[in-house]
Amino acid sequence: MSKNLFDFGMIGLGVMGRNLLLNMADHGFSVVGFDKDKAKNSALEASATPGTTVKGVSELSQMIQLLQRPRKVMMLVPAGQPVDDVIASLLPLLEKGDVIIDGGNSHYTDTLRRVKYLRDKEIHFMGIGVSGGEQGARTGPSIMPGGDQSAYENVRPMLEAIAAKVGDTPCVAYLGKEGAGHYVKMVHNGIEYAIMQLISESYAILKYAGLSNQQLHEVFKSWNEGKLQSFLVEITADIFLQKDDKTDAHLVDVISDKAGSKGTGKWTSQDSMELPVAVPVIDTAVAMRTVSGYKDERVKASELYSSNATFSGDIDELIQQVHDALYFATILSYAQGLAMLFQASKDLNMDIPLPEVVSVWRGGCIIRSSLLEVFTSAYRQSPELSNILLNQEVASLVKSVEDNTRSLIAFAAKSGTPAAALMASLAYFDAYRSERMPTNLIQAQRDYFGAHTYQRTDIPGTFHTEWGQQ
Amino acid sequence: MSKNLFDFGMIGLGVMGRNLLLNMADHGFSVVGFDKDKAKNSALEASATPGTTVKGVSELSQMIQLLQRPRKVMMLVPAGQPVDDVIASLLPLLEKGDVIIDGGNSHYTDTLRRVKYLRDKEIHFMGIGVSGGEQGARTGPSIMPGGDQSAYENVRPMLEAIAAKVGDTPCVAYLGKEGAGHYVKMVHNGIEYAIMQLISESYAILKYAGLSNQQLHEVFKSWNEGKLQSFLVEITADIFLQKDDKTDAHLVDVISDKAGSKGTGKWTSQDSMELPVAVPVIDTAVAMRTVSGYKDERVKASELYSSNATFSGDIDELIQQVHDALYFATILSYAQGLAMLFQASKDLNMDIPLPEVVSVWRGGCIIRSSLLEVFTSAYRQSPELSNILLNQEVASLVKSVEDNTRSLIAFAAKSGTPAAALMASLAYFDAYRSERMPTNLIQAQRDYFGAHTYQRTDIPGTFHTEWGQQ
Repeated sequence: MSKNLFDFGMIGLGVMGRNLLLNMADHGFSVVGFDKDKAKNSALEASATPGTTVKGVSELSQMIQLLQRPRKVMMLVPAGQPVDDVIASLLPLLEKGDVIIDGGNSHYTDTLRRVKYLRDKEIHFMGIGVSGGEQGARTGPSIMPGGDQSAYENVRPMLEAIAAKVGDTPCVAYLGKEGAGHYVKMVHNGIEYAIMQLISESYAILKYAGLSNQQLHEVFKSWNEGKLQSFLVEITADIFLQKDDKTDAHLVDVISDKAGSKGTGKWTSQDSMELPVAVPVIDTAVAMRTVSGYKDERVKASELYSSNATFSGDIDELIQQVHDALYFATILSYAQGLAMLFQASKDLNMDIPLPEVVSVWRGGCIIRSSLLEVFTSAYRQSPELSNILLNQEVASLVKSVEDNTRSLIAFAAKSGTPAAALMASLAYFDAYRSERMPTNLIQAQRDYFGAHTYQRTDIPGTFHTEWGQQ
Repeated sequence: MSKNLFDFGMIGLGVMGRNLLLNMADHGFSVVGFDKDKAKNSALEASATPGTTVKGVSELSQMIQLLQRPRKVMMLVPAGQPVDDVIASLLPLLEKGDVIIDGGNSHYTDTLRRVKYLRDKEIHFMGIGVSGGEQGARTGPSIMPGGDQSAYENVRPMLEAIAAKVGDTPCVAYLGKEGAGHYVKMVHNGIEYAIMQLISESYAILKYAGLSNQQLHEVFKSWNEGKLQSFLVEITADIFLQKDDKTDAHLVDVISDKAGSKGTGKWTSQDSMELPVAVPVIDTAVAMRTVSGYKDERVKASELYSSNATFSGDIDELIQQVHDALYFATILSYAQGLAMLFQASKDLNMDIPLPEVVSVWRGGCIIRSSLLEVFTSAYRQSPELSNILLNQEVASLVKSVEDNTRSLIAFAAKSGTPAAALMASLAYFDAYRSERMPTNLIQAQRDYFGAHTYQRTDIPGTFHTEWGQQ
């Protein structure tokens, strides 16, 4: 084998694929990218750092011939059929022991199917979640690989080199079997939906109370310097400063409120119900993006149900309450997502190491935050923690902001500012900390009308009552 | 064809199948039931009203031979593979034009598949939702048929005879094409989950405030005599009276709080996200049943996050607030479910007539309530109503209880009593009546970190900004 063969190949040279490849080249690996679009190949080569080895080709077979064995090929193409199409075109070109990586946002069940299909052909298939956006891909993303551990060892040097670093620790680790990489990425995105929704509700409440964009910038900037430090709070502070280049407005004020989505939040909610695990803050975030699309109905409803509420309180007290509620609800969002991973790891036989998951999320990804240091420490103490709310340190953080959270939710309810995800986090918390929930009544109702039977608190067994006969 | 042939056949003589068949016989139809279990055949015949024509057989071919053509056969077997198995065993026995009815809780996608499969064989397949529990099946259920309209005409006399009646109107009507019957029943059950959760939260708040079971009985009984009149409120009043036959306790107090489910609520939430339509009260009800299963964790969490809150307010005022919040949230539950049917009818090409749906739900089913009269009237005014919240009369009912709902949610938040579904209903309402939601910030964030682009409020098109560059 020639020493001039390349270390790594990339299929799909959109901005994510290109940036990951350039990042790898910057770390001393020789890389080749394939895209049918010759302009993208030229763009790849033109944007390479001088002195790095980067080549773009427009024939897939050419790329494969240029790769060292075992070949390591990543694809960054749209989820669904395109991934299967790429696999089909690769199969005649690859040999036993080669590694195919899907770095896109595939659903984990597709990944699982592909792992099994290619395992029979002795080709390794890995589903790898990559988070950090365009910029993260170029300078250091958070990387969530799953699949065969032996295949991971083949690509580990490249992935560790390009990943974000927290201190000296790269934000990548083997995160489990089968579809685990894409599962972890899906839940990451669910948590991302939740936190974005929580920040938008915090924004709505502060805006209702009269804060200008400049003041909102200052509030979020100061929060990012405290215990709310996180990527999403940081960029939110930036966003309020951004001026529109077409009008005199702040850009945020002219952006439509119809929120888009690519479906990973929806998957998280749907799959959580399949396990089942409760992730109501994520469910709520998904629902609110949907409601944001009801523009015409909302305009009509705003006339029918107008509100005259105005703010007349202590603004500094309110800002502190919003801060505390956002902190509370952010912890609850992570708690629900991580509880989902805990259950899925067992039920779907993925062996997901939660201490590694939260460690990987500390840098590079969209949900990176200082809270992940707390969770990393919690899982190192007890790797089998079913819910981070049961950790003492997390509990003390939650309790420190609980009263203000309650006050803020009461304020939102009274003032009519929508706070769906903030409310969902408190409601989940209050249910989760209930030794006895009122769902005994639901069991009684189900047995009353449908003879669905019930269990008792005092005697084992299954019971049915002929209700209303006395 | 002999005049002695039977009018209708039933496959599966569990309590629901038997009761529907006996109900049909009571209305003058001659009926035959099939079950492999001979004891069930004897039980069927033994429980027939004297003078009615009811026969039980243990060979499927025997039942088919006994039926008039076109044969009308209903099955009430567990959803999933058993339905396909029954179809496979029926196919060699049936002839063109015969009608097979699935009266169980099948997922509508399975029904759609079966409709198409059997249409090719010129056999009619109908998915029919039946609600009302055992008692309703015997004396008058609510019936939700979907499928070929010509097949419906064949079975309409039987279904109208056995259905519950509101005045002279039977609670059955043709509810749409393909899988519409099971789709409507699924959403019915989603609403049922929501209302049951809301009642359980109302119970929790009143219990927290010190009401005894006797007082709870009186409160719910009086509510059932007012604008909250409904089957679920009625049986809830009964439930609080029921004494345990094993201890001195009220039965409700010794029933375990782990709530079961058969999956139709989960389907409603999952399928709503697929459309997408937001049904957060249903989502929350599903999530809370899941949390009810976390018994061991909840016991631990109750120690870590103990609460000392005690009630010290005006109990009559609180009862009125709970009443109003339950009324508010019940309307919101119907609104979300019906909005889901509105969208699904279009997107899935089912032509579901919403005025007929709410009319059918007025009697016999688990979610029957006096509110359905209001909704029936609203849809008769405007059959294309995308959300009942946009109807003037509904709006006036909602507004009449809005202030007390806000006070009750604030109370729940402050006191720490979990009120997840009540909160979800208010939060949805406040988002739905927002001309502008704060989701513009989410669009800004998505464009910032992922170049997902955004729309503007003032200029058509799709835009991207290089954020934070100024």
